Amino acid sequence: MDITLDKESKLPIYIQIAEQIKKQIMMKELLPGMRLVPERKLADELSVNRSTILNAYEKLKQEGYISSKVGQGTVVLVGNQRESLRSEPCWNQLFSDKVKAFDSLLLKETMPLLDPRNVISFGLGIASHEEEPELPINELAAELEKNLPCKAITMAPIGGFLSLRVLLAKRMIKTGVVCSVNQVLILTGSQQGIDLAARIMIEPGDIVVVEAPSYFLALQSFRATGARIMEVPMDEDGMRMDHLEQLLKRYHPKLIYTMPNYQNPSSRCMSLERRKKLIELAHRHDIIILEDDAYGEFVYDHVPLPTLASLDDSGHVILLKTFSKTISPGLRLGYMVAHKKIIEMCCLVRQGEDVHPNSISQWLVEKYLETTDVDQFMIPVCSHYKKKRDLMYETLLKYAPAGMAFYKPKGGIYIWCQLPEHLSAMKLLERTLKHNVSFMPGNSFFLSKEGDSYIRLNFSYPTELEIKKGIRVLCEEVESIRRDNQVELKACDIVPMY
Amino acid sequence: MDITLDKESKLPIYIQIAEQIKKQIMMKELLPGMRLVPERKLADELSVNRSTILNAYEKLKQEGYISSKVGQGTVVLVGNQRESLRSEPCWNQLFSDKVKAFDSLLLKETMPLLDPRNVISFGLGIASHEEEPELPINELAAELEKNLPCKAITMAPIGGFLSLRVLLAKRMIKTGVVCSVNQVLILTGSQQGIDLAARIMIEPGDIVVVEAPSYFLALQSFRATGARIMEVPMDEDGMRMDHLEQLLKRYHPKLIYTMPNYQNPSSRCMSLERRKKLIELAHRHDIIILEDDAYGEFVYDHVPLPTLASLDDSGHVILLKTFSKTISPGLRLGYMVAHKKIIEMCCLVRQGEDVHPNSISQWLVEKYLETTDVDQFMIPVCSHYKKKRDLMYETLLKYAPAGMAFYKPKGGIYIWCQLPEHLSAMKLLERTLKHNVSFMPGNSFFLSKEGDSYIRLNFSYPTELEIKKGIRVLCEEVESIRRDNQVELKACDIVPMY
Repeated sequence: MDITLDKESKLPIYIQIAEQIKKQIMMKELLPGMRLVPERKLADELSVNRSTILNAYEKLKQEGYISSKVGQGTVVLVGNQRESLRSEPCWNQLFSDKVKAFDSLLLKETMPLLDPRNVISFGLGIASHEEEPELPINELAAELEKNLPCKAITMAPIGGFLSLRVLLAKRMIKTGVVCSVNQVLILTGSQQGIDLAARIMIEPGDIVVVEAPSYFLALQSFRATGARIMEVPMDEDGMRMDHLEQLLKRYHPKLIYTMPNYQNPSSRCMSLERRKKLIELAHRHDIIILEDDAYGEFVYDHVPLPTLASLDDSGHVILLKTFSKTISPGLRLGYMVAHKKIIEMCCLVRQGEDVHPNSISQWLVEKYLETTDVDQFMIPVCSHYKKKRDLMYETLLKYAPAGMAFYKPKGGIYIWCQLPEHLSAMKLLERTLKHNVSFMPGNSFFLSKEGDSYIRLNFSYPTELEIKKGIRVLCEEVESIRRDNQVELKACDIVPMY
Repeated sequence: MDITLDKESKLPIYIQIAEQIKKQIMMKELLPGMRLVPERKLADELSVNRSTILNAYEKLKQEGYISSKVGQGTVVLVGNQRESLRSEPCWNQLFSDKVKAFDSLLLKETMPLLDPRNVISFGLGIASHEEEPELPINELAAELEKNLPCKAITMAPIGGFLSLRVLLAKRMIKTGVVCSVNQVLILTGSQQGIDLAARIMIEPGDIVVVEAPSYFLALQSFRATGARIMEVPMDEDGMRMDHLEQLLKRYHPKLIYTMPNYQNPSSRCMSLERRKKLIELAHRHDIIILEDDAYGEFVYDHVPLPTLASLDDSGHVILLKTFSKTISPGLRLGYMVAHKKIIEMCCLVRQGEDVHPNSISQWLVEKYLETTDVDQFMIPVCSHYKKKRDLMYETLLKYAPAGMAFYKPKGGIYIWCQLPEHLSAMKLLERTLKHNVSFMPGNSFFLSKEGDSYIRLNFSYPTELEIKKGIRVLCEEVESIRRDNQVELKACDIVPMY
């Protein structure tokens, strides 16, 4: 049973237990007729004496909530009307329709599976958990000790510390994005930037264009505003501009959400030509582009391409950057670069969302940027991740059964795989979890059910040993389901999609 | 001009300047005919040689963006068509109506005034900035140094670290709120709790009941969801239940937002009788109560009253707590205690908002709770703040001109003052700022314009010396405006409202 004890409380333990069970009965978490956990078992669970449980149950009996019968154990009584039982809120009418429509699959079913303890996890989207390369933040914590600076814990301006915004504006200028300090907004993770962009612009029914597949939490933010979401397919050069143009002939979207660099989950990189075309289309149709550049620093095989923000000169691009991948996700720190008018509007809404960004995280990142040449810092990180990408790719080549399609990404931290026909990602996950191997099923990345035939494999987090072992297990399970299904597959190569 | 230089960049400084001015011209921040800042002045502002500015301006002249004429200075040219100027987004159509209706007063006008550097600030809502009582967090930073624990920077579960939630559930049980761990959600500040509650429940047009006055950022969150907000007046015992009952006869609100303990801004404390009545009304009409208990720990003159959450047994209360006031606002950490169904829904929406709470802040607060008896810790803090409250109250009694009404709050960190008739809080602020004294005008706390005759004075942040000096200045300015206005005041006492 779901009971939390406070052993330091003056309230006797048996009363704490009785009260919580009573509440569960009143909240209808324990329904009439349901059997309570046997006394001895509950005593073990809670690490208390059996007599404590006996006392708690006795109290509940006296108050008419439960009764014990030989052979039946202790059951919740029907119509225990000693106190007038108040009824719960009417849940169905309580929640807003937009929220009720949320896809809870990810939260309820996938998230616990991503817990990396005792599991080889290909399901996360974060940095390596090995010793090397060392996290830049460890040294900074030493500074915190010497004298926790007032700035690190006090209130910050809504848009973030000015000094940090100056550093970030300078960094942006280096990458070709001409901007001033008041075009930079510090975010509680770049996710907040997606959410704010949606909140300031989208009225229910407004159209948002996304890539198919697209980042699931972006889809969720757009849904939360009541947006009508339209997908544009991708190929090896990213979002297909011919499809987008067709769509723009019929509809007038307010926003195009894209991740041109090593997209999550497909790891595709949008070609320079398409980047230019996208900017041109945005200008011609007056559409805002939300450019999510979470993976731009993770380049392995070519020179980085310019961001859309650096190609735009008219305020049509909102650029989002994050420190979750380059430093650590626990910081919850990212930033937005956009036209002043957009930043101002985001500040207004952000105030009501979380008031201002976390001061300690801002302080740590500011020190990091002051003391670190970020580009230099990323060189060993990238070479480390490149090795892991190669290893995962080669292991897949070696073990993947016929019909499984994948390709070697030029950057980012994922390999995106299409499963053999009629094979379900969710079912595969059930099987691999029995061998303590997890990954992210493709389901949440599409609006349609198509996603269930894809899986996203992260190579930055697991160790090389884990990659070898885990990919082998995964491929064996694919093969085994395929055999179980007795699916007749067309002759088809293991080789990459292109 | 708004220009940011990167002196380490390989791009020459004069080109950086020219490019940023060019962008401002193209973005129509600098309009044709507008005069640029004179070269010498800009050189000073940017701390560069005058010749650098000359070079930048020369480049812009050559490219046809600006021209210099004797006696006119340097002006932006009309129709500088050397590059095709792309037009900006159509701003009016871009932003959603709900957001456009936001009250930007606070952000644009008040926030800069709250900057406490060189100002005696009664405008903030945060802890003392004196050495004593020492912030609990200083010692904890030492722990961070020894070994920045992986947990402090890694990803956290959506609802927050389980270990922290256990500690908080235990603390809640101590205060009479029967709850289990999965009824606790860690928030990015309690503000996020207001926002999440609004987002999961409110459809445009749904009614939210608030106290008048009410916390301005709560009003903003409700507005952002398209809620119809209705005010219920307060008296010395808090929200008036007779008014609420009348309202409930006509309307069916979805949510009642209240701060029963030492409300922001009025510092009123809801009586026990009214608390019970409010719970009864919520049950009878099936309305959710959002109980914001930001100030419950700051009790000076009586024993604390039970929270609404502890009086409810049917899942109708969402309780919000924060560490902003007891530890530090820069942590951005708070928590929600509510029925499991509400917590689950909030988790779904929170994912799309900021993914999960900040790990460092969670780690710090967890250590704080493990090592500190919070109730003991608050004793000296409260006695310190009580002294300051008394000092502010007595200084007001001494200097306040006729017609200024206020009362001694039993807890919290604010004194709420009504100004003499026809006196505007915004105008008063203009005047006191000239003497480096700031406060929060009442405007944002009401839906109507009524707020302009109130001011909120914080006594926790300023020192005793600042309180004495600042309150005197404030009262003198009230008196002086009153004389200027030559307002005929009715004979009226200085004494408290009750």
